[in-house]
Amino acid sequence: MIMEVIEAIQTRRSIRRFKPEPLQEEHLKKILEAAQQAPSAGNKQPWHFIVVRDPDTKARLGEIARNQTWISNAGVIIVALAMDKKSPLVYEKWAERDVMIAVEHMVLSAWSMGYGTCWIGAFTEEDIKDLLDIPQEMTVINLLPIGVPDVNPEKRSRKPFEEIFHYERYTTIT
Amino acid sequence: MIMEVIEAIQTRRSIRRFKPEPLQEEHLKKILEAAQQAPSAGNKQPWHFIVVRDPDTKARLGEIARNQTWISNAGVIIVALAMDKKSPLVYEKWAERDVMIAVEHMVLSAWSMGYGTCWIGAFTEEDIKDLLDIPQEMTVINLLPIGVPDVNPEKRSRKPFEEIFHYERYTTIT
Repeated sequence: MIMEVIEAIQTRRSIRRFKPEPLQEEHLKKILEAAQQAPSAGNKQPWHFIVVRDPDTKARLGEIARNQTWISNAGVIIVALAMDKKSPLVYEKWAERDVMIAVEHMVLSAWSMGYGTCWIGAFTEEDIKDLLDIPQEMTVINLLPIGVPDVNPEKRSRKPFEEIFHYERYTTIT
Repeated sequence: MIMEVIEAIQTRRSIRRFKPEPLQEEHLKKILEAAQQAPSAGNKQPWHFIVVRDPDTKARLGEIARNQTWISNAGVIIVALAMDKKSPLVYEKWAERDVMIAVEHMVLSAWSMGYGTCWIGAFTEEDIKDLLDIPQEMTVINLLPIGVPDVNPEKRSRKPFEEIFHYERYTTIT
């Protein structure tokens, strides 16, 4: 199963209920490669990712994420980290931002192969660092459960064009 | 011209030289729709985009972007803005980050239709705000020139899998 870029972007939904099925290894590999290929400021690639499949760890991540226990049904949970933004190896302003690009590459490539994901940003960062031995100086950006969708959500509304796009200069709508 | 998600992610390059051709209107519309559909924390959609086609404004943006004058050959330059992160309408932590997702949607959808882009992050923010009447409380995230590629760059290197992916917990490579 493959999918065209604009179709993937237009049909993607956040999936919050998964069938208890694993990801195929070859699909997981393609998803991780999609993150690896993301652009970043100065090609610094200021990211690390932890691939969690252990059931106990997934369950604990669900608890830490404000009891969103449904994420433990995902075949894999990716924990996305920004490198120490004070490190000379990265650009401070871009370290956290660039991770977003790599994660969205996973979101879209997963969707194109029939998997659902959901950006999870509500959690106690310290608890995740403790659980997964993450160095203190890194930033946990998000959790990304990836699994086989067991739900087909409606499209959520988006702001209309005239509210977000401006032409030639910023114009306040009055 | 259309392209599959993983192919687009794998073949995309940053394009720094454009043919002096405009974007087709229908293509530009699809690119903007791709940004509009991006996910964001709490669906807050904390973004605005200025679509610049005026030659003088494009030229001035190139100067402000550390004299990267080549960007003025792009058919369009998108100026991506994060809404005031102190506003109750957005989540402070996610306002700047979420804009990255929407911009990468433009990057990938443009590439899938044969257009090249380049994330431009080096510029004097105040000068862009002055030029385009952007409210002071907003953040200019990046410029995104979009145009017809006049160059076919080599793939830049990426860190190997074992340097960025960890399994079950963070492990320091020794």
